[in-house]
Amino acid sequence: MREDINEKCAVVGIFNHEEASKLAYFSLHALQHRGQEAAGISSGDGKRLHTIKDRGLVTQVFNEEKLETLKGHMAIGHTRYSTAGDDSILDAQPVHANYDLGQLSIVHNGNLTNHQEIRQELIKQGAIFQSSMDTENLIHLIARSEKEKLKDRIVDAVKKIEGAFSLVFLSRSKMFAMRDRFGFRPLSLGKVGDGYVVASETCAFDLIGAEYIREVEPGEMLIFEKGKAPQSIKVYDATPKHCIFEYVYFARPDSQVYGQNVYQKRKNMGMELAKEQPVEADMIVPVPDGGVPSAIGYAQESGIPFEMGIMRNHYIGRTFIEPTQEMRDLKVKMKLSPITDLIKGKRIIVIDDSIVRGTTSRRIIRMLKEAGASEVHMRISSPPTTNPCYYGVDTPDKDKLIAANMSTQEISDYIGADSLAFLSNDALMRSVNSKGEEYCTACFTGEYIV
Amino acid sequence: MREDINEKCAVVGIFNHEEASKLAYFSLHALQHRGQEAAGISSGDGKRLHTIKDRGLVTQVFNEEKLETLKGHMAIGHTRYSTAGDDSILDAQPVHANYDLGQLSIVHNGNLTNHQEIRQELIKQGAIFQSSMDTENLIHLIARSEKEKLKDRIVDAVKKIEGAFSLVFLSRSKMFAMRDRFGFRPLSLGKVGDGYVVASETCAFDLIGAEYIREVEPGEMLIFEKGKAPQSIKVYDATPKHCIFEYVYFARPDSQVYGQNVYQKRKNMGMELAKEQPVEADMIVPVPDGGVPSAIGYAQESGIPFEMGIMRNHYIGRTFIEPTQEMRDLKVKMKLSPITDLIKGKRIIVIDDSIVRGTTSRRIIRMLKEAGASEVHMRISSPPTTNPCYYGVDTPDKDKLIAANMSTQEISDYIGADSLAFLSNDALMRSVNSKGEEYCTACFTGEYIV
Amino acid sequence: MREDINEKCAVVGIFNHEEASKLAYFSLHALQHRGQEAAGISSGDGKRLHTIKDRGLVTQVFNEEKLETLKGHMAIGHTRYSTAGDDSILDAQPVHANYDLGQLSIVHNGNLTNHQEIRQELIKQGAIFQSSMDTENLIHLIARSEKEKLKDRIVDAVKKIEGAFSLVFLSRSKMFAMRDRFGFRPLSLGKVGDGYVVASETCAFDLIGAEYIREVEPGEMLIFEKGKAPQSIKVYDATPKHCIFEYVYFARPDSQVYGQNVYQKRKNMGMELAKEQPVEADMIVPVPDGGVPSAIGYAQESGIPFEMGIMRNHYIGRTFIEPTQEMRDLKVKMKLSPITDLIKGKRIIVIDDSIVRGTTSRRIIRMLKEAGASEVHMRISSPPTTNPCYYGVDTPDKDKLIAANMSTQEISDYIGADSLAFLSNDALMRSVNSKGEEYCTACFTGEYIV
Amino acid sequence: MREDINEKCAVVGIFNHEEASKLAYFSLHALQHRGQEAAGISSGDGKRLHTIKDRGLVTQVFNEEKLETLKGHMAIGHTRYSTAGDDSILDAQPVHANYDLGQLSIVHNGNLTNHQEIRQELIKQGAIFQSSMDTENLIHLIARSEKEKLKDRIVDAVKKIEGAFSLVFLSRSKMFAMRDRFGFRPLSLGKVGDGYVVASETCAFDLIGAEYIREVEPGEMLIFEKGKAPQSIKVYDATPKHCIFEYVYFARPDSQVYGQNVYQKRKNMGMELAKEQPVEADMIVPVPDGGVPSAIGYAQESGIPFEMGIMRNHYIGRTFIEPTQEMRDLKVKMKLSPITDLIKGKRIIVIDDSIVRGTTSRRIIRMLKEAGASEVHMRISSPPTTNPCYYGVDTPDKDKLIAANMSTQEISDYIGADSLAFLSNDALMRSVNSKGEEYCTACFTGEYIV
Repeated sequence: MREDINEKCAVVGIFNHEEASKLAYFSLHALQHRGQEAAGISSGDGKRLHTIKDRGLVTQVFNEEKLETLKGHMAIGHTRYSTAGDDSILDAQPVHANYDLGQLSIVHNGNLTNHQEIRQELIKQGAIFQSSMDTENLIHLIARSEKEKLKDRIVDAVKKIEGAFSLVFLSRSKMFAMRDRFGFRPLSLGKVGDGYVVASETCAFDLIGAEYIREVEPGEMLIFEKGKAPQSIKVYDATPKHCIFEYVYFARPDSQVYGQNVYQKRKNMGMELAKEQPVEADMIVPVPDGGVPSAIGYAQESGIPFEMGIMRNHYIGRTFIEPTQEMRDLKVKMKLSPITDLIKGKRIIVIDDSIVRGTTSRRIIRMLKEAGASEVHMRISSPPTTNPCYYGVDTPDKDKLIAANMSTQEISDYIGADSLAFLSNDALMRSVNSKGEEYCTACFTGEYIV
Repeated sequence: MREDINEKCAVVGIFNHEEASKLAYFSLHALQHRGQEAAGISSGDGKRLHTIKDRGLVTQVFNEEKLETLKGHMAIGHTRYSTAGDDSILDAQPVHANYDLGQLSIVHNGNLTNHQEIRQELIKQGAIFQSSMDTENLIHLIARSEKEKLKDRIVDAVKKIEGAFSLVFLSRSKMFAMRDRFGFRPLSLGKVGDGYVVASETCAFDLIGAEYIREVEPGEMLIFEKGKAPQSIKVYDATPKHCIFEYVYFARPDSQVYGQNVYQKRKNMGMELAKEQPVEADMIVPVPDGGVPSAIGYAQESGIPFEMGIMRNHYIGRTFIEPTQEMRDLKVKMKLSPITDLIKGKRIIVIDDSIVRGTTSRRIIRMLKEAGASEVHMRISSPPTTNPCYYGVDTPDKDKLIAANMSTQEISDYIGADSLAFLSNDALMRSVNSKGEEYCTACFTGEYIV
Repeated sequence: MREDINEKCAVVGIFNHEEASKLAYFSLHALQHRGQEAAGISSGDGKRLHTIKDRGLVTQVFNEEKLETLKGHMAIGHTRYSTAGDDSILDAQPVHANYDLGQLSIVHNGNLTNHQEIRQELIKQGAIFQSSMDTENLIHLIARSEKEKLKDRIVDAVKKIEGAFSLVFLSRSKMFAMRDRFGFRPLSLGKVGDGYVVASETCAFDLIGAEYIREVEPGEMLIFEKGKAPQSIKVYDATPKHCIFEYVYFARPDSQVYGQNVYQKRKNMGMELAKEQPVEADMIVPVPDGGVPSAIGYAQESGIPFEMGIMRNHYIGRTFIEPTQEMRDLKVKMKLSPITDLIKGKRIIVIDDSIVRGTTSRRIIRMLKEAGASEVHMRISSPPTTNPCYYGVDTPDKDKLIAANMSTQEISDYIGADSLAFLSNDALMRSVNSKGEEYCTACFTGEYIV
Repeated sequence: MREDINEKCAVVGIFNHEEASKLAYFSLHALQHRGQEAAGISSGDGKRLHTIKDRGLVTQVFNEEKLETLKGHMAIGHTRYSTAGDDSILDAQPVHANYDLGQLSIVHNGNLTNHQEIRQELIKQGAIFQSSMDTENLIHLIARSEKEKLKDRIVDAVKKIEGAFSLVFLSRSKMFAMRDRFGFRPLSLGKVGDGYVVASETCAFDLIGAEYIREVEPGEMLIFEKGKAPQSIKVYDATPKHCIFEYVYFARPDSQVYGQNVYQKRKNMGMELAKEQPVEADMIVPVPDGGVPSAIGYAQESGIPFEMGIMRNHYIGRTFIEPTQEMRDLKVKMKLSPITDLIKGKRIIVIDDSIVRGTTSRRIIRMLKEAGASEVHMRISSPPTTNPCYYGVDTPDKDKLIAANMSTQEISDYIGADSLAFLSNDALMRSVNSKGEEYCTACFTGEYIV
């Protein structure tokens, strides 16, 4: 039910498989939750690269005929969440170009914080930019590097950029995977048949029958070349600061990200939340689907029964028909409905993963109250979201973030809850830290790394 | 995850509301889960009827412009699940016709068991049939009745038909709602503004802001006329035999059907199942979404933790791309994925609402075993489905119903479970009978009413 | 450029060809100019009939997959021009029904003048009508006939109807073609492979490689049965009154209708027009495409040069963009453009086939004057259209027919011509009568036959 | 009926009109015959540029809503004919980029002959190329020029390129129109309201209500700036070599190109052809629509009657249905049909504008012979096409050009004509030269300019 905070994209790369573009297609399908605006694949057969990209879901952009034109044993792919209002076909990825070493295709998950500076510098040197994507910088930097080998040029280029990037490159004969030193955005390595796969989340591995090997390390570049094992180059010393919001909301619960399972982390958050923010009630109800694992955790820890008191409707479609005056909160009600009989007269703890603008929470609580709930206590399995993200997540401006502008009590009043509480940052860290990992929590704390 | 047993349709009627066709539209949207093949609405403004129907989802068939042509203060609507392979636009409803009393539109949820006999008799008398729908019989019977008034003709007509029917009729100036004597299929009455609504499930009432009044009684005909309270005529003595499968699987959990909440009934089934069919295990996992409420019931009764160990993917789309050889059970895996980390090494009780052909259960269990479950015990919150339905549900032939052809142990072996158990019919009755209601359980027991 | 008078449809029938539905498809394609709103085909394999029909052009309604489901050695087809504003999918043809002799499909070109009387009579007898098509009457009449054999029932039925009809019927094992006693609407018989084809115009024969045999005679019924030559039954004595507007405007110039070539007839009209209505001028310019053959005839007769002074644009598409204030007469100009250099300072005779409402003629003359023509003399290769048609042509009401409400001089002034003249009815008859054929000229003369 | 030789595109520019993008839209609509694969418009409001481009016809790419986002008083547009097999959305125009002077959009009709050399040179300098369009070179050259002002940079850039180019540029505040020194491709200047329009053909002016002023001269750059008259800069001395094929086939007959009317030129060609290549016959028949004006010219000169003996079908649509064995030459017959009655037993002179591969001519002659023509003499209103074009026309390779590989007699035999003759190059020149203009006739003579 989050419509106000979004992962910007997903990347995938397949190397040494005779149906590489088909595997990329299904991987992107598994990663569709990370971006529904556009999709694209570049493939390579050792001689030249082929690229198809367009607006739409993966299943809309590709068909059998198109996949067949994407020949070759290696392929990279991308799904994209649209941010700008502009007609955005030119901002779809992969970005591909001809340059002095031949052909190059790139897919990128993340956001370059020094994007504008680099762009202005490049433009000053005579470069032209045909899209508004920060990714376009990378090709220019590689094309302008004076190194002879592509791998050295990539190192040159990434040393100039700052911010968050999980990148996969395809050249005529090789594939490269690279992650920024902080490992902001996830990227995992797997084995499929005799080949390899890298992907933003491991749910892609599960669908295509690949086996998880390990994370691509922060600061690491992997080079895939025919007939050789993947070569690892440490471009930077790793200083991990993984994006905590992957665990809070973005990633699929069945995925591993940063080497650990998402569902378990969310359940931990619910348990910690029950410890920190207990309240007497008759039942725990999640806001589906985001709140489900933490609600289960909260229920197990508190002993209060878990109930699927709000159902999610699977036949939404798009409607442009205006409601009548009897029909309040139509937009939410078309997606979510309360089990009135279950809720009537009951004290409810409703669990959600986060509050961004507060409008959806307000509608949900009104809906539960209208269904007869005697009390509605909202518990959020993450701290107040008080700061925008600069590392690849699409967040509203600070003045739209309700927690940046109101106290918890004020928010509680605004959304009409009988009480409201958030998970503390410490408790969040306890939920996700099994081996001392470090996370970027700037959206909660304002402590930006770069 | 049921693809093998389906409700055939939903009906709705709106009377005395200035935006009647709009309310019918949103009601059908709420009832979309009961049929996705075709949709249609007839409206009436006291002078003439207007009908639009077509293949597709409700949101695809209608837009603002089309709804505006459906003028008037009354409207009836229908969504349809396709059964035949034929190109089926002509089998969409409402069925509308001109006959000697003027114009008439009908929507029908159910199935007439003496359809062929009546049809042959009518054809012998010179009638022509332009569709394969049993509903077409009704208009012929009404047109051929020698009674003067439509309400008497409807009585004449329904007295000739047998089987299951929840019907709504629209004439130039009145709306009629009628339910067979057994009340096989649900039909509820509500109030919206100054007008009335009848619908297959109350989830339609919730979306349009209507208030539930009561069930349309089995054997009852309601007549809606401008400026009068709805008039009730008892056409038959009621001998209720409600379709039990509405509670088991079809209806939305947030709906009332037969006057009671569906979620609660399903949870009861899970509790009874836990009593009848306990087994030691580490966690309860539902097959989403159908198995969720009964799994919660099973967990609460048994004390074994409930976990959302299988997730449902919301971005399915349609793909015609063939999988590679590494990709087993693609069709299921695109919809459902196991939380591997949660399941690995664990003893799982997986709960589903029913087993029809057995193929999906087999794939799910294989998926869980591949994810590392040490034991998988399947528990089904209904008895073995051994008989096809003749009262409006689309079931496979008996030779495709696995429970009609194998013992429980054989099914267990076939699907690869460590154990398998069904809810007994007695326990099912305990789950749903709060006030001595009677149900049609022919699909489980073979005891057909007619 | 006629948008104001339209043929209502085309029919085709194929018998004894293993790719019958494919031949029907291509025949309909050749007849697409007679109706673009909907298309349909019924096929039969001796066991049962299959029907597909939908809104749209023939190429939109059918694809390879759909044609393959239309199995069998016989097929009938229809394209339809929409008249009503209602959502008209239910008014597409073939009309098919089950009745006491089995299955029946009908396609109909024409209009029944006693449609309402028959319909009311049938409704009084208990019949129901599910469309607004007069064709539905026919199935009822056949179903209610007490004759034993279909051919006798068809005779029974057509004896009750009045008006214009070229009909093709498909039963389980036979095909029937039938034309009203006046032969209002055309219907030709041809041979294709070892089988037969009937079609509204012979341009369908040319496309599918069929050979023209003869006209289906007015009042004749042809019965096609496997293993036999077509059997001819004279249902009525023929009293031919062919629709003259087929020659004036509807039929394709490369077709034979009523046994004679359309282009030649139109050229004759132009020659007669030159004799009757000469005027001094520098060039003859047709309004494309309708005016081309008669303009050639006029030019050959008068000795004044023929020039393609108005071109027709083939990339029209549909646009909903409003023009700017500089852009007058956009709708006409997007279709037709003057060759300004050719026309400037010249005296032009512009030839069109008819004037219905007068608005298009007015725009064309304004366009020619703006292009610099010193004089524009309009010559129409048919008499003034003063009366609506009741025999299957879609005409505006009499008060919209400019020639029913203004004198020729008044029309000339209204459209801005320097002179205007029509072909006389006598001259029209001379143009088309090679062997004493008789025509229905009610639209020009008001002499209705029935 | 040419499918084997095609104009590659059309350009348009509007300056100083409050509905600039709407005028660009309608202009492109009038120019749709020059390219149907993709369309695009960039507009500018003095602050920033907006661009929308996509695959499809102009009416498919744009709607009211999209046009409204293209704000501003200036706009440039492009329609494109696809050449490559690749998925070509990235090759649509306008090409737009950010560079050191700000934003720039370009549309280009033509072909740069030193495209590869420049591209390699630019790549060597570190440039990246994201499309396969030669137009991309121009932006790089402008971005890398060391001049301060855009107009000087454009001069710098065009001095480096060779070949054919009619270009329109849009910067933040100005519009530039530029034509190569030879004036290969057409470009005319007009006045609309208080603003200006440049377009490939004047048929665009007629539709939008603009007035023709003059040609943009070969080698001239026009600069449009708010509040000033267009400024003209002579970049090169003009050495005109206009593409003769615009007159032979590409341009619309109602257009002026190179300052003269196309229809008149084509008619002249027909007259010259009649003088050079007379033959006894009963009628002149054009291959529509290309052959119509020259056939009229041939008829007027020879005194042999002109007849529209082959008609063009306007409802083609696309079909993927395979023909049956009775159906020969389906593809041609769906577009063109002979008037059999007219042709039977007659000696025909059939006139077409050119022969490229010869296959279509062969099918047309076979069709005429099958329709009963006693003799078919083909006359072509241009010389044999023996050489491919390098200046912006899409021609087959030399080995596919029938006239490059066979003598006229051999071609005549191949296509099955009783005789075949082409217009001589001298006569062609006489047809088009009213004031001593010079033309590029490389496709006929092999004399390439550059």
